[in-house]
Amino acid sequence: MQTLQSYVLGRWHTGTSTPTPLHDAHTEEAIAEVRSGGIDFAAVVRHARELGVPALQKRSFAERGALLKALSGVIHEKREELISVSVSNGGTTRGDAKFDIDGATGTLMAYAELAAKLPQKPYLVDGEGLQLGRTARFWGQHVWTSRPGVAVHVNAFNFPAWGMLEKMACSFVAGVPVIEKPGTPTALLAWKIAQLVVEKEVLPAGTYQFVAGSTGDLLEHLGPMDCLAFTGSSGTGAKLKATPNLVKHNVRVNIEADSLNAAVLAPDVEAGGPTYNAFLANVVLDMTQKTGQKCTAVRRILVPKERVAEVVADLKAELARITVGNPAESTTRMGPVASRAQFDDVRKGIERLQTVAETATGGPKPLHPKGFYVAPTLLVAKDAGASVVHQDEVFGPCSTIVPYSGDAVEAARIVALGAGGLVSSCYSNDDAWVEAYVLQAAAWTGRIWIGNDKSVEQALAPGMALPWMLHGGPGRAGGGEELGGLRGVQFYLQRTALQGFKGLLESRFGAPQATPAS
Amino acid sequence: MQTLQSYVLGRWHTGTSTPTPLHDAHTEEAIAEVRSGGIDFAAVVRHARELGVPALQKRSFAERGALLKALSGVIHEKREELISVSVSNGGTTRGDAKFDIDGATGTLMAYAELAAKLPQKPYLVDGEGLQLGRTARFWGQHVWTSRPGVAVHVNAFNFPAWGMLEKMACSFVAGVPVIEKPGTPTALLAWKIAQLVVEKEVLPAGTYQFVAGSTGDLLEHLGPMDCLAFTGSSGTGAKLKATPNLVKHNVRVNIEADSLNAAVLAPDVEAGGPTYNAFLANVVLDMTQKTGQKCTAVRRILVPKERVAEVVADLKAELARITVGNPAESTTRMGPVASRAQFDDVRKGIERLQTVAETATGGPKPLHPKGFYVAPTLLVAKDAGASVVHQDEVFGPCSTIVPYSGDAVEAARIVALGAGGLVSSCYSNDDAWVEAYVLQAAAWTGRIWIGNDKSVEQALAPGMALPWMLHGGPGRAGGGEELGGLRGVQFYLQRTALQGFKGLLESRFGAPQATPAS
Repeated sequence: MQTLQSYVLGRWHTGTSTPTPLHDAHTEEAIAEVRSGGIDFAAVVRHARELGVPALQKRSFAERGALLKALSGVIHEKREELISVSVSNGGTTRGDAKFDIDGATGTLMAYAELAAKLPQKPYLVDGEGLQLGRTARFWGQHVWTSRPGVAVHVNAFNFPAWGMLEKMACSFVAGVPVIEKPGTPTALLAWKIAQLVVEKEVLPAGTYQFVAGSTGDLLEHLGPMDCLAFTGSSGTGAKLKATPNLVKHNVRVNIEADSLNAAVLAPDVEAGGPTYNAFLANVVLDMTQKTGQKCTAVRRILVPKERVAEVVADLKAELARITVGNPAESTTRMGPVASRAQFDDVRKGIERLQTVAETATGGPKPLHPKGFYVAPTLLVAKDAGASVVHQDEVFGPCSTIVPYSGDAVEAARIVALGAGGLVSSCYSNDDAWVEAYVLQAAAWTGRIWIGNDKSVEQALAPGMALPWMLHGGPGRAGGGEELGGLRGVQFYLQRTALQGFKGLLESRFGAPQATPAS
Repeated sequence: MQTLQSYVLGRWHTGTSTPTPLHDAHTEEAIAEVRSGGIDFAAVVRHARELGVPALQKRSFAERGALLKALSGVIHEKREELISVSVSNGGTTRGDAKFDIDGATGTLMAYAELAAKLPQKPYLVDGEGLQLGRTARFWGQHVWTSRPGVAVHVNAFNFPAWGMLEKMACSFVAGVPVIEKPGTPTALLAWKIAQLVVEKEVLPAGTYQFVAGSTGDLLEHLGPMDCLAFTGSSGTGAKLKATPNLVKHNVRVNIEADSLNAAVLAPDVEAGGPTYNAFLANVVLDMTQKTGQKCTAVRRILVPKERVAEVVADLKAELARITVGNPAESTTRMGPVASRAQFDDVRKGIERLQTVAETATGGPKPLHPKGFYVAPTLLVAKDAGASVVHQDEVFGPCSTIVPYSGDAVEAARIVALGAGGLVSSCYSNDDAWVEAYVLQAAAWTGRIWIGNDKSVEQALAPGMALPWMLHGGPGRAGGGEELGGLRGVQFYLQRTALQGFKGLLESRFGAPQATPAS
């Protein structure tokens, strides 16, 4: 039995508490354990501030990018080994494991490239300078500089690699050292990556610490320059955000939480055409990839009333082709959910949905006597306004069709019943319909993916968060912003208004090199 | 005795509770009263969402700007009457009253002009579009759209006009209706403005509501699209931010709170030169304008050790010229503080400072037997590291000299002891010194004002928040961002990533007209 250790204060630390076991999601065997306790978190924060901050902030943006590139290389080199860990501890198929691990290395590379293009200056320029006085002598300019603090990243269980490393990418470009806390049920993969990071010595001392198990009183030691980025449930997000010490010091908090993502089929889309086929393929992918344990997965499928029967039949046919079973076998298309807790939650969630929806396929019954297996489950809402459909994120291979009139504005209104989401996708070749939908839905959704005949064959799937586009959403989704190129980096920077002599501001804090738009 | 009413649900409402009196700060006479109670805040929020949101969001940016221009005109027309109210209820001199009222109308006009230049589209483009797929067919673009929610503005007592109207300016440009709550001790001026707004019918129904007295359970009715902007003490800010309903729905919260603003004199500045003279004039202005009740006023004055005696003598000489007395008299340069509560707080604060600092001039003693009069008080820290100097915002005509070595990095380190501030000013003709200071201090300060011989004669004073430059700061200052042109508007907008066919995104959500930089 492996015991996951923390890496803090420049050394590996074994916890002192009673162990929490991690399981193989297929066999239910305990394969590792996590122990908390015995860490001096005040010292951990000091270590990051005193060693990590200067180590990163004396480096240029490009040099920080080079660190990310090296990190990506080290992980990519051990790709096969990491995939095996993910298949076992995460219950992911090989394809799902690659989605997580290659997503991580790809995002690191994207941010390495972004950083390489940034100015050789310790600040970024924000917008154009402007005249403040009677003449141009007295001038204004906004700049972004690195905050001399530490970033605590509390990651979710579903993306042990990508979740940790996309947060690190933004933080490192900004020059802010990290303290990473993995989601415990799948912490084995995150720990393997932490081991690589430490062993290969790719990152400067103090810039990377890793806490397996509980973070104890860590948040009590954060101050005005520090920040917390969290991915997980709305409930835990709210609890963290309200931590009195964070509130008191206005510690920055970014939350990426529950999201009832929606796919909307417009009435104009013809059966059998590229857009309709993409709609079916993307819905099935979202329902089954990572066994539906994706924060961006489709939970609600808005279908014009008169086409519900057709869509149900087509989705059922596609879902029937998904082989569910041992993720280690190459023919398997969908594995188990990651843990016993998820298994119980998903099954209860499906039961709640069944009180307001008909089950088209699947259901809450365990698929196998052993392992955390649930069937791909498609439901059709009887009551399109039932709150459970719009507010209850069932984090598994489960989605509900919501019949609607076909009107774009009504679709947006139904999407908004989710009270804020990460992504909605819409499928239409009617540009006016799309425009009406987007204008109404945009404020409720962090990202809108639009499929039409001209682009779907080249489109990356809506469930995929890309480094160049914002990831986050309002309300229930947490109100946060991650990724989006520089936008995600800015969370870790401070924006400051400078006022003074134009010649001075332009020569010392101006924009001799343009900042890339994203 | 006037009773201040609320304007809610399209009508004036008189509260039902025991009245709270408002006083003339010179005579201590009660001149008006506020009564809370009897308001259905759920209905108030619905009213704003159902009437106010569509009324603003069907209007273009330019049309919303026209509303601000009309509002500015209505207020400017009654300028003399409003100045009289401010002199009596606020204890401000005529000059101070103008600073507040003209600041309000000026900011409204600045945002009216900004809005007039924005595209004739219901969204703003954020950054450039970019290729996401193998070819340019699959494209990404970020946009800002109006959130269909309401903005609650909880304003401070010190700027009853400017504080309310600068928040409204940003909110209105974004298309978001407001519920304004004035600081009670000086609510008479805010109420007079509310009366003008209503009487002149400048704003569409549902877009403006005004709550005199307590906001009761208002915050319990806010949801994911709503926001709260607060100006006031750190303690109240923290309490509001932690309101469970706001945390639960990730209601956006912007706080502008305590700030131990600093002025830093660099060692190179020669006595008698323009920069030195501006330093003296700005410090004295900040200490005495609005009787030091400005969130941006200088609380700490960093002076090279060997020049402390000289600076003390010069500041004392300047402060001796400040006539303190009845603000209604034209010869008066500084009036009383605004209320009995402030009077008590400031006097206690000076006493706390006296435990770690020598008093160069002034002190906690009441200046007159009647009225809330405190002397301009200059102290010199015996212990430059004493926390009371750096953490205790004494909100009156009071500032403390902190001796330092003259080193730019040490100055920034001392400024950072304030744990996050709104503004710091530095005075130097040595560009390398300025660069070193700014790079170290920027993350700790929302705004840095730089004075040198080439610009000080044209410079607007550091204590003045300008519509084009960010107002807000990290940590103790609340972690917020107001003003700064479009930056302050974006708090009320939602940023959304769009992904789809390039031709569609460019034609429907692209940037046919460039968005102005600020």
